[in-house]
Amino acid sequence: MKVAGVSYRSVWREAQRVAIIDQTRLPFEFRTLRLSSCDEIAHAIRSMQVRGAPLIGASAAYGIALAMSADASDANLQLAAQLLGNARPTAVNLRWAIERMTRRMQTIPPAARAEAAWAEAEQIADEDIAFNLSIGHHGLAVLRRVAEKKGSVNVLTHCNAGWLATVDVGTALAPIYLAHEAGIAVHVWVDETRPRNQGLLTVWELSQHGVPNTLIADNAGGHLMQRGQVDLVIVGADRVTATGDVCNKIGTYLKALAARDCAVPFYAAVPTPTIDWNIGDALNEIPIEERSGAEVTTMQAMDADNRIAHARIAPGGTRTANPAFDVTPARLVTAIITDRGIAPASRKGLEGLYRKKVA
Amino acid sequence: MKVAGVSYRSVWREAQRVAIIDQTRLPFEFRTLRLSSCDEIAHAIRSMQVRGAPLIGASAAYGIALAMSADASDANLQLAAQLLGNARPTAVNLRWAIERMTRRMQTIPPAARAEAAWAEAEQIADEDIAFNLSIGHHGLAVLRRVAEKKGSVNVLTHCNAGWLATVDVGTALAPIYLAHEAGIAVHVWVDETRPRNQGLLTVWELSQHGVPNTLIADNAGGHLMQRGQVDLVIVGADRVTATGDVCNKIGTYLKALAARDCAVPFYAAVPTPTIDWNIGDALNEIPIEERSGAEVTTMQAMDADNRIAHARIAPGGTRTANPAFDVTPARLVTAIITDRGIAPASRKGLEGLYRKKVA
Repeated sequence: MKVAGVSYRSVWREAQRVAIIDQTRLPFEFRTLRLSSCDEIAHAIRSMQVRGAPLIGASAAYGIALAMSADASDANLQLAAQLLGNARPTAVNLRWAIERMTRRMQTIPPAARAEAAWAEAEQIADEDIAFNLSIGHHGLAVLRRVAEKKGSVNVLTHCNAGWLATVDVGTALAPIYLAHEAGIAVHVWVDETRPRNQGLLTVWELSQHGVPNTLIADNAGGHLMQRGQVDLVIVGADRVTATGDVCNKIGTYLKALAARDCAVPFYAAVPTPTIDWNIGDALNEIPIEERSGAEVTTMQAMDADNRIAHARIAPGGTRTANPAFDVTPARLVTAIITDRGIAPASRKGLEGLYRKKVA
Repeated sequence: MKVAGVSYRSVWREAQRVAIIDQTRLPFEFRTLRLSSCDEIAHAIRSMQVRGAPLIGASAAYGIALAMSADASDANLQLAAQLLGNARPTAVNLRWAIERMTRRMQTIPPAARAEAAWAEAEQIADEDIAFNLSIGHHGLAVLRRVAEKKGSVNVLTHCNAGWLATVDVGTALAPIYLAHEAGIAVHVWVDETRPRNQGLLTVWELSQHGVPNTLIADNAGGHLMQRGQVDLVIVGADRVTATGDVCNKIGTYLKALAARDCAVPFYAAVPTPTIDWNIGDALNEIPIEERSGAEVTTMQAMDADNRIAHARIAPGGTRTANPAFDVTPARLVTAIITDRGIAPASRKGLEGLYRKKVA
C-alpha cells in the first residue's frame, strides 16, 4: 500500500539486499533499512523491526536467500535456518517459511540455490498478497452492501491486521483498502489497543494510504456502537478454531460483546491457513500468553526533544497482569471472512469453504 | 485512608490554611500543598490538583472559609463564589457546595462568618465521609458473602472512585477498604482507564493502604472474567438515573457486558444524591461530554531523568475522538450500592431505598 503516495511492500528485494520498514520507529518516523545478511534479518525479527506473523515468515524466507547468496553449502543452510528459527521462538509462520525454504534448497545443487532461494522468497511474499487480496474482495462485498444502503461505512477495528503485519494489503484492513480504492466512503475507528498500542500502526498505515480514520481509546468502542456510529467490526485473528472461536489480541472479546448488544455485525478476517482444525473450544484448549508487565507500565513515546523514548507511565513496583490474547466465542461472531469466501463461524460453516471449491 | 502508614483525608484544615494532596503528581510523587487563599483553592480545582466530584465540592467549601477569613464582606463572598464556580464549569457538586456555603453565610453577620464557614466546610467534608462509610458497610456484606464461600474476593474496578475522589473512604472502593480492614482477603483488578489513566490513582491509593491490587489494560477485564478470575465488579458513577441506568467513565459499559456474559455480578456504588430522579433513559437523555483529543495522544509519564512529563504517544495530526462517559443500561446492573442500602437497578428498586426509611 502507499506511504506518502509511493507504493510499498513491508519487505522487498533490492538487488542483493532485502529492504524493510523499521516498524520500531513507527508511527513517529518512516525509515527503511537495507539488510545484507541473514544475521541482519534475524536481528530485525528479534528486535521487532519486522512483526506480524505473515511478515515474519516472508522476512525469514528472504533471510535464507541472503544466506544462500553468501554461502550455499548445506552447513550454512542449516545454520541460517537455526538462526532465523530462534529469532521469535513461538511464531508458527516463521517455522513454516523456514521449513519450506529448506526443503526447496535441499532439492537443488548449491550452485543453483541462491537464485532459487530468491525466487522462492518472492513466491512466498506474492502468495501472502494473493491471500489478502482474496480476503479483501470477499470483504469488499460486505462493505459495499452497507455503503449502498447508507452512503458510507464506519468500520471499527482492533490492533493492527493491516499491510504492515503482512507483506501487503493486510487481512482485516484488506476489505477497507479495496473499498477505499473502489470509491466507497469508508472511515475506520481505530482502537488504541493497549498495552502495545498497535492501533497507532493502523492509524499510520491508513493515513498514509489516505483512508479516513479516528484513533480512540479501547474504552470508547461500546459507546460508539450504542450511538449507531459503527456499521461493522472487522478484526484479524491469530487463530480461528474449527468451531469458529476467534483468538485475537486482548480486548477483542469486549468489542464482540458490544457489537452483539448493539446489533452491529462482527467479522474476523483471516487466510484459511489460520483455521486450526485441531482445536474446537478455544476457551478450554488455547493457553493464553502472559507477557511482560513492562508493556503495561511503560510506553513508546516521543519526548519534548522529539526523541523516541520509553516513558514510564506507572511507578516501579506496580503489580501488573498482561494477558496478550483473548477468545471471542463463535456465538458472538457474525462470520469469518477468508480467501475462500465468507463462512458462518461454525464447524459446518468453515468446512463449507472447502466443499464449495470441490463442487 | 493511609499513605505510608499515616491516615489522610484528601483535603483538610491546618490552622488558617487548607491542605490538599497534589493529585497531578500522583502516582509518581506524594506531595501535599498548603493553600492560604480562595484564589489558590480555585487554582487547585482548575488545574486538577484536586479532582473527583465530592472532593471538588468540599475543597470549594474550604475556599469560601479562606475567603471569609480574609474579608467576610458580602462583596467578597460573592467574588469568592464566582471565582470558585468558574473553576470547573460543569461540576454539579461544586455548585452545590458553593450555594450551601453562600446561603449559610448570608444568615449571619460578617464578624461571625469566618468561624461559621470553617465549621460548615468541616461539616460538608464529614458528611461526605459518612455517606461513603454507609456505602462501604452495605457493600461489605456483599464481599463478605463471597469471601465466606470462596475464602477470598477478587473485585474488578474501573477509573478511580476511591478516597482520592472524595474526602475519604471513596464510593466504589469503600466496601473494599472496609473488607480489607475486616480481615477479608480482597484483591482488586484495576483497569488502567484510558485515556486519563485514573486507574493509576486507584493503584496508588490501594497500595498505600495495603490492599493487594493488580493493574491491567482496559482490554484485559473480559478475559479475566471468562477465566473465573473476577468475583464481582464495582464501579462508581457520575449519575444514576431514576430507572437505574449508570452513567460512568468511558469503558464501564464494556465491563458490564462481560460481567453479564460471564455471570459475574456488576455493581455501581453511589451516594443517594447521585441518583438523578429527573432522568429515566440515560442513553437518550444524557449528553456525553467529548473531551480534548490531547488526552488520547499524550500521556503523563516519567522520563529517563525521573521528571514528570507529558509524553506524546501518537503523532501530531492524528485524528481522535474522546467521549468521556458511557451509559450502562440498568439491565446489565446487578444492583446499586448506596448509603441507604442496596437496591435493584430499577425505578421501583431505587424508590424502595426511601420507602424503607419511612416505614
